[in-house]
Amino acid sequence: MQDQTFSYQQLYNFTEAIFQKIGCSKEHAAIATKSLLAADLRAVDSHGVARLSGYIRLWEAKRINATPGIKIIYETASTAVVDGDSGLGLVIAPYAMQVAIDKAKQAGTGWVSVQNSNHFGIAAHHAMMALQYDMIGMAMTNASPLVAPTFSIDRMLGTNPICVVAPAGNEPAFVADLATTTAANGKLEILQRKNKEAPIGWIQDKDGNSSTDPNELKKGGALLPLGGDKEHGSHKGYALGAVVDIFSALLSGANYAPWVPPFPAFMPMPAEQPGKGIGHFFGAMRIDAFRPADEFKQHMDKWIGGFRSAKTIPGEEKVLIPGDPEREMEAERIKNGIPLVDAVIDDLQNLSGKLKVPLLTGR
Amino acid sequence: MQDQTFSYQQLYNFTEAIFQKIGCSKEHAAIATKSLLAADLRAVDSHGVARLSGYIRLWEAKRINATPGIKIIYETASTAVVDGDSGLGLVIAPYAMQVAIDKAKQAGTGWVSVQNSNHFGIAAHHAMMALQYDMIGMAMTNASPLVAPTFSIDRMLGTNPICVVAPAGNEPAFVADLATTTAANGKLEILQRKNKEAPIGWIQDKDGNSSTDPNELKKGGALLPLGGDKEHGSHKGYALGAVVDIFSALLSGANYAPWVPPFPAFMPMPAEQPGKGIGHFFGAMRIDAFRPADEFKQHMDKWIGGFRSAKTIPGEEKVLIPGDPEREMEAERIKNGIPLVDAVIDDLQNLSGKLKVPLLTGR
Repeated sequence: MQDQTFSYQQLYNFTEAIFQKIGCSKEHAAIATKSLLAADLRAVDSHGVARLSGYIRLWEAKRINATPGIKIIYETASTAVVDGDSGLGLVIAPYAMQVAIDKAKQAGTGWVSVQNSNHFGIAAHHAMMALQYDMIGMAMTNASPLVAPTFSIDRMLGTNPICVVAPAGNEPAFVADLATTTAANGKLEILQRKNKEAPIGWIQDKDGNSSTDPNELKKGGALLPLGGDKEHGSHKGYALGAVVDIFSALLSGANYAPWVPPFPAFMPMPAEQPGKGIGHFFGAMRIDAFRPADEFKQHMDKWIGGFRSAKTIPGEEKVLIPGDPEREMEAERIKNGIPLVDAVIDDLQNLSGKLKVPLLTGR
Repeated sequence: MQDQTFSYQQLYNFTEAIFQKIGCSKEHAAIATKSLLAADLRAVDSHGVARLSGYIRLWEAKRINATPGIKIIYETASTAVVDGDSGLGLVIAPYAMQVAIDKAKQAGTGWVSVQNSNHFGIAAHHAMMALQYDMIGMAMTNASPLVAPTFSIDRMLGTNPICVVAPAGNEPAFVADLATTTAANGKLEILQRKNKEAPIGWIQDKDGNSSTDPNELKKGGALLPLGGDKEHGSHKGYALGAVVDIFSALLSGANYAPWVPPFPAFMPMPAEQPGKGIGHFFGAMRIDAFRPADEFKQHMDKWIGGFRSAKTIPGEEKVLIPGDPEREMEAERIKNGIPLVDAVIDDLQNLSGKLKVPLLTGR
């Protein structure tokens, strides 16, 4: 069956109306909608409107506060801790990233750790706010405990993504945005919807055996850290995921490790909560706190050009720069619309009925 | 044949004398020796005295300046750029890390990018300087271009390690120190010395085919980014290595990508140099720029305890915390000495003859 395609504006109007229906201010609904749909535009299909019903489920469970008083609770010249007041991460994250940028304007760099938040969509959307100021941007977050560290059966970490963006001159910006696992949970959700198997090295079953069943997580299985197994460096993926947890939650006072309140409906709330909500971490570094921005950007162009002209292995057309595929998809989808699979459309139609917001189908 | 074992003090005296023979001041020789031997103590055997002759070779080639005027060439409240004046990275790195720490004391965090340096030994030794100040420490460096990005035959990046350390309370500190490749070049050097094959997923040959020959790099082959191949996330390892390059060299004005001056003797100097020497990046974040350090450390203890008590997969005894194996090896080697393979001892004996410094063998 052919996917149905929606224009960005159709999904924007629907999503913004849904967020307003649950009580978000017009301003917050707009910010949240832009954060969420950035994923659909960049073809990170798992993190966009496919998750809208998940956010609403958390709101129904009183885990999301639609009218949060987001505020800085501690700060120094180059740092801040932000309390998200249980709001949408989609709104808290841009607020905190702006704090990091404002700190960087004054002190050269700004670093913000966030407590009491929820899922923030895709990291790149927030980190990329830094680019217009000629800054390097960083964003990371902890997430639902679905990842088994090396040698473990227990699920102790989230897919804990790291995003780093850097401006270039004539070339488009460098945008690295990666889960610290072999594959993000969203990739499994897509395989589930399409009824396909996962490659070896992505997941293990509840006893620690390798598995290709994308539904394994619902049966107690786990995602594997980047590297897959010890011989291929999974201890490195595990260490990176741990760093994200420490920066996002141990520094801020959010929950961490297996005690992070989960997003998926199939996961129970942890019995214990050593912190508040989930945690994020944002960074901004002014390029000209190191060297003139123009000079840096010229060298970035040379760097990017070098990789673009690297010789490819047989069967591959080109060496990609981090951010290339997503940027190309964004241009394509702004022009031709965003395709959604049936399961996601069903989800949106349920929301449409429940919250009395019309969903215009087709383009 | 049994490896010979040396005491730390024996190797210390020898190495310090060698550095003084090439013209280092007593102070610089001591700093360089401690940086270098930190690798032997932590059982990162590839990065310790096994590389001493490599440093001397670079000095003979006039690529290392034994009496550098290391200095800050630009700074803001939370940032600095350091020019290493072609000195030993082993000396420049502790200098730059101290600058980061001093910035953090004032501004909450400190971030230092370094140009005009050379190989700095193991990243953990430098990052760990932050721990005594209750700071998070970070260290990274670019390195000899030996890594092919995803889909590439050309060697465009180094193994570009990232180290992040965080203090704990009763537990030992968290110390993550990882090459952004499946395996570090040093791991291959060890396999070469032992005449063993490498696992699949570590390297490719000059045409981009998978290989298990640890000598492949000398024949135009390449190390693979963490992940190994695209399906297993090698684009993530590639992106992380790229971030290290950008922070270490694009921010500082060092050489980057395939233009990094290489360390191994078998690699020619790049025809072009867009910057100066190799680049490093250091960071320090004062814990109490976010929350009280005691509170953070209590939660780190809980975090570590959670992972230590996680259930293991069959056949494994325990889930490790990043830094555990190296710390245990350090305690063991301080007590029982540092074993060296014949090839390394031969190397040291050559240096001993050439620079007229006695090498006491045996313990």
